[in-house]
Amino acid sequence: MSIALVLEEKDKLTLREIALPDELGPDDVRIAIDTVGICGSDVHYYTHGKIGPFVVREPMVLGHEAAGVVSEVGRQVRHLSVGDRVCMEPGVPNMASKAAKMGVYNVDPGVRFWATPPVHGCLTHSVVHPAAFTYRLPDHISFAEGAMVEPFAIGMQAATRARIKPGDVALVTGAGPIGIMAALAALAGGCSKVYISDLVDEKLAVAAQYDNIHPVNAARDSASDVIAAATNGWGADVVFECAGAAQSVQAALEAVAPAGCVVWVGMPVDPVPMDIVLAQSKEIRMQTVFRYANMYDRAIELLASGKVDLKPLISETYAFKDSIAAFDRAVEARPTDVKIQIKIGEG
Amino acid sequence: MSIALVLEEKDKLTLREIALPDELGPDDVRIAIDTVGICGSDVHYYTHGKIGPFVVREPMVLGHEAAGVVSEVGRQVRHLSVGDRVCMEPGVPNMASKAAKMGVYNVDPGVRFWATPPVHGCLTHSVVHPAAFTYRLPDHISFAEGAMVEPFAIGMQAATRARIKPGDVALVTGAGPIGIMAALAALAGGCSKVYISDLVDEKLAVAAQYDNIHPVNAARDSASDVIAAATNGWGADVVFECAGAAQSVQAALEAVAPAGCVVWVGMPVDPVPMDIVLAQSKEIRMQTVFRYANMYDRAIELLASGKVDLKPLISETYAFKDSIAAFDRAVEARPTDVKIQIKIGEG
Amino acid sequence: MSIALVLEEKDKLTLREIALPDELGPDDVRIAIDTVGICGSDVHYYTHGKIGPFVVREPMVLGHEAAGVVSEVGRQVRHLSVGDRVCMEPGVPNMASKAAKMGVYNVDPGVRFWATPPVHGCLTHSVVHPAAFTYRLPDHISFAEGAMVEPFAIGMQAATRARIKPGDVALVTGAGPIGIMAALAALAGGCSKVYISDLVDEKLAVAAQYDNIHPVNAARDSASDVIAAATNGWGADVVFECAGAAQSVQAALEAVAPAGCVVWVGMPVDPVPMDIVLAQSKEIRMQTVFRYANMYDRAIELLASGKVDLKPLISETYAFKDSIAAFDRAVEARPTDVKIQIKIGEG
Amino acid sequence: MSIALVLEEKDKLTLREIALPDELGPDDVRIAIDTVGICGSDVHYYTHGKIGPFVVREPMVLGHEAAGVVSEVGRQVRHLSVGDRVCMEPGVPNMASKAAKMGVYNVDPGVRFWATPPVHGCLTHSVVHPAAFTYRLPDHISFAEGAMVEPFAIGMQAATRARIKPGDVALVTGAGPIGIMAALAALAGGCSKVYISDLVDEKLAVAAQYDNIHPVNAARDSASDVIAAATNGWGADVVFECAGAAQSVQAALEAVAPAGCVVWVGMPVDPVPMDIVLAQSKEIRMQTVFRYANMYDRAIELLASGKVDLKPLISETYAFKDSIAAFDRAVEARPTDVKIQIKIGEG
Repeated sequence: MSIALVLEEKDKLTLREIALPDELGPDDVRIAIDTVGICGSDVHYYTHGKIGPFVVREPMVLGHEAAGVVSEVGRQVRHLSVGDRVCMEPGVPNMASKAAKMGVYNVDPGVRFWATPPVHGCLTHSVVHPAAFTYRLPDHISFAEGAMVEPFAIGMQAATRARIKPGDVALVTGAGPIGIMAALAALAGGCSKVYISDLVDEKLAVAAQYDNIHPVNAARDSASDVIAAATNGWGADVVFECAGAAQSVQAALEAVAPAGCVVWVGMPVDPVPMDIVLAQSKEIRMQTVFRYANMYDRAIELLASGKVDLKPLISETYAFKDSIAAFDRAVEARPTDVKIQIKIGEG
Repeated sequence: MSIALVLEEKDKLTLREIALPDELGPDDVRIAIDTVGICGSDVHYYTHGKIGPFVVREPMVLGHEAAGVVSEVGRQVRHLSVGDRVCMEPGVPNMASKAAKMGVYNVDPGVRFWATPPVHGCLTHSVVHPAAFTYRLPDHISFAEGAMVEPFAIGMQAATRARIKPGDVALVTGAGPIGIMAALAALAGGCSKVYISDLVDEKLAVAAQYDNIHPVNAARDSASDVIAAATNGWGADVVFECAGAAQSVQAALEAVAPAGCVVWVGMPVDPVPMDIVLAQSKEIRMQTVFRYANMYDRAIELLASGKVDLKPLISETYAFKDSIAAFDRAVEARPTDVKIQIKIGEG
Repeated sequence: MSIALVLEEKDKLTLREIALPDELGPDDVRIAIDTVGICGSDVHYYTHGKIGPFVVREPMVLGHEAAGVVSEVGRQVRHLSVGDRVCMEPGVPNMASKAAKMGVYNVDPGVRFWATPPVHGCLTHSVVHPAAFTYRLPDHISFAEGAMVEPFAIGMQAATRARIKPGDVALVTGAGPIGIMAALAALAGGCSKVYISDLVDEKLAVAAQYDNIHPVNAARDSASDVIAAATNGWGADVVFECAGAAQSVQAALEAVAPAGCVVWVGMPVDPVPMDIVLAQSKEIRMQTVFRYANMYDRAIELLASGKVDLKPLISETYAFKDSIAAFDRAVEARPTDVKIQIKIGEG
Repeated sequence: MSIALVLEEKDKLTLREIALPDELGPDDVRIAIDTVGICGSDVHYYTHGKIGPFVVREPMVLGHEAAGVVSEVGRQVRHLSVGDRVCMEPGVPNMASKAAKMGVYNVDPGVRFWATPPVHGCLTHSVVHPAAFTYRLPDHISFAEGAMVEPFAIGMQAATRARIKPGDVALVTGAGPIGIMAALAALAGGCSKVYISDLVDEKLAVAAQYDNIHPVNAARDSASDVIAAATNGWGADVVFECAGAAQSVQAALEAVAPAGCVVWVGMPVDPVPMDIVLAQSKEIRMQTVFRYANMYDRAIELLASGKVDLKPLISETYAFKDSIAAFDRAVEARPTDVKIQIKIGEG
């Protein structure tokens, strides 16, 4: 039995003992969890009891953004040792699937993902995880930063799939956590500058603390006008649509340059009207993204090099015993909140 | 003054004399037109007087799918000679534009395109055209086939932008002329087989006369079910959406495989609802296309090799003097009509 | 104990009983072998006892190009059933490796490959193999063709990595088995025509029986001259260097077009002088290939569709009991020999 | 007649009056030259009288790395005005060529390139140049930096063709001017860190003044060992070979990761032995580069954003009247010399 933060049902969280899978296979490691970040999906399960087809029918441990310390290694594990500081990819695919063989294990329909019903998450003291999806952290990267690798990997996936060319100009629509992650990944990934649009000045201010991120308040200015002015009328080489709203979908198509790329990161609840003819007139590419694959190594490299600094995005840290308060804070997030974390370990 | 087929205004065609640009620049060739195909856009200008923002305000010569014989060459022209049998790319970009320098001259906003107001088309005896956009036909390719290179180039652009891998399975939605062109280009371009869906059996029968094109009547069968059955549930590696309807847009997203590609070829009149989350769940790429660039050489190569045979798609040929009858036939097209052509030359 | 064709040491083959691994894991299938093709590497181990760093130190069963029938399935196997006719990918990677996660399991250093010391091959009655690397054959594809999927997959890998665009013109240097496979894959994969060069007319004649494969005897004609004449001086969009000789390496660089691609398929025994400046002057891409990954499905699709016909390349079939004679024939191959196969099963 | 720095013949430079082309076409601009950098090729023409097939047979003005001010615009020029501060792409292709239409105008065989016989360079007070290859500089970018865009564009071309993914680890072999440009472009273009190898510590020290560039003295340490240690044995995702020596060619192949990319930037005088089998065993891609295309806009964006700072690489600036001394300094370059510039204008 382990103490864990359990979502019993919609609106009901408990910090209690629960039986969790504990068997260490030959290719697994056991990890003492140190820090877990709260993701919008965790909050959504808490407040709605489901996300699309994924419904919480049994009590489920929340949390999937985690870092910790290896406490035990399976007998076939070679690249990790007890004591290694690590972060974990929360989705475990079937590596024998067609998708996995092709290198896109993220779209294997058989993926089991932490804190996605019926799979338990990691807001507990210890988890067992495949070593292949467990990544060592350099000494100078804190657990708090390690737990940020997961959301940053989403931005990295978007930046990678965008196939940025050095010096590209990008627009990000939506300055929420994922929009900021996409902006930072785009800058680290080769963009010269990134414009980011939102309706809330406080959120834009968080993004604009970084060099070469330029805020656009879409309530006052048209993002496509700003981009046109900045690019001699050419448009943004890449647009990361991270707001998931009909207006920003249209803004993305208007702002993108001929032969440019729009990456659909935001997830609109319903189908949105899309002006395909406008997209065709510029012969753009539209890339969708789903979580991430093969991003942890490179995300960690970028943190380790100092090219990306995620520390300013950690808004508040709660003790494990205050996990419910942490979630309630996340539900009632302030505009400047990017990431709320829960500290479990002593590390 | 030249005899030409002139669209005077909506619904009014005249075969009459008209003054046309006639100056031969140093990089131009003069071409005696032999054969011109009728495109859906020609018909649409005839019946509606406009396409989107392009309005016929002055009498305009129609026609942009043409082949003929070089009758004069500008003094700087090296790769063409008088007597060469040729076909012509109807859009002439500004080659000093940013888009042209990048190799995507088709999306140069400054393109001047035959029979797109206010630019005259080629349904006349002789035209002047840049040599750089005039392509020699092999001896064994007829003018009728040469005039088919233009619509085939649209399919080629779609197949090229799809980045087909050898052996891919494709779905084409819509068995109109462009759908068939996409299907043929996809097969020639590496697909193992192509499923094509439509609501009209006669149109499907035209497509299905080719090896490895498999018809699906979407009124009776779900294209995505057919694809799933044919691919062990994986989906189509590439979908070419050529119908431009909301249902086929949705069908495209349902039928495509994880990490697959949907090419948006059809041009829906209005924005269509798009299920971005469905697209994301498979992390698909969506590629739009606009006309074509750098496709004529390779289209001609495929015709010359015999890998692609467009002759069965020429439904009827009219004499130049019967051009108006040809257009009226095109307006009232039979389900099995793919291409109506007008023969101007003696060749 | 199983009867198998065992390479005891250099120059010494025996058809005898040998103990082979036989345990069926939960993700494995057992396959009754029907047909096995002889590869140049099998012959080389026979005549030299080694290939590069891979030295035959213990008796080793030969053979890695195989098709057969599933006779037993592991308890977790879902996509295969007893009685399924199948062919097998002979390399088994560690799917938890970094390379495998990236989709390039072929370059996982941990790959275990049939008939590569110290791993036994499949010239025996029955093998156990991971279901994930076992592929169902359509009913109308014979075992003999199924055993050809392996060498064809090498051509497919080359054609896929080349990123052929529809209508590309290709040159293949070397009309041996792999050169022919590359040529067929290139044609099926989108090329309009393929020139193939060799010094031996009989080998060229085998290749030239296929439509759109044009032979060039490099002893009489320069391949780059032939290509230049066929492409208005432009060059081959793609060159597949399959001869592995210094002269053909140079010929590849001479024949390739600006911005074209040379795929290095042939494996020169020693480093070859390469004119990097010539390659740079055309800014070509040079792609190397190593075996194949994710090619079996698509290779089978192309065989099933009839776009590729490998049957004419099966030069002779020997009974299992005559395996040593089969190898001796392969050692003393006639110029027209492409593939010698051994029939083990009754199927 | 204009005053210009004229290479009369091998080893003989004169600063004298010479008649230069001066006609302003409708698509041209006239530019008052402010600053010109000295390139290794300028020096090589000076000391050898030729580079490969390009032989100085008539007196030729040197210089091709330039920035200045627009003093007159042709009547069709829209995007530039008198007084604009600009830098210029020194190669002028035939935009009607096949290569140019494809977007690779750099490999158009018809390119006319400044200071490449028989084309005059720009070490003079005023030049006429196509507006399409003239790029505006932001106000805060100096002429000295503007004249650095040309060599930086070479690095940019290499970084772009490498198709860097965010977080890639790179190795650059050779810490000369081009090696440093490649390293800076690679970092700006998405690499997390760049190792750079050379035999000369002073050159390495110049490179290592930048964050995330790590020097490797190849006389003391094996670059591939250093890379292996830094990447858990995986290798460098991208290697930029900029030394052009046989040893560094081999080192590049040893250091690159499976499925990685080697960009051949350095130009070995003679063919070098290349271990194709080693390259194949990792299935690497090898990309060659030739000058640059479509790089100036994005290079300027990166300078303007501050992501790339080239000012530390300007080692010394000479007045126009001291041009010969400038060249003599460049001939006898100190290890720490990266770029010697000549200031012509008053700006």
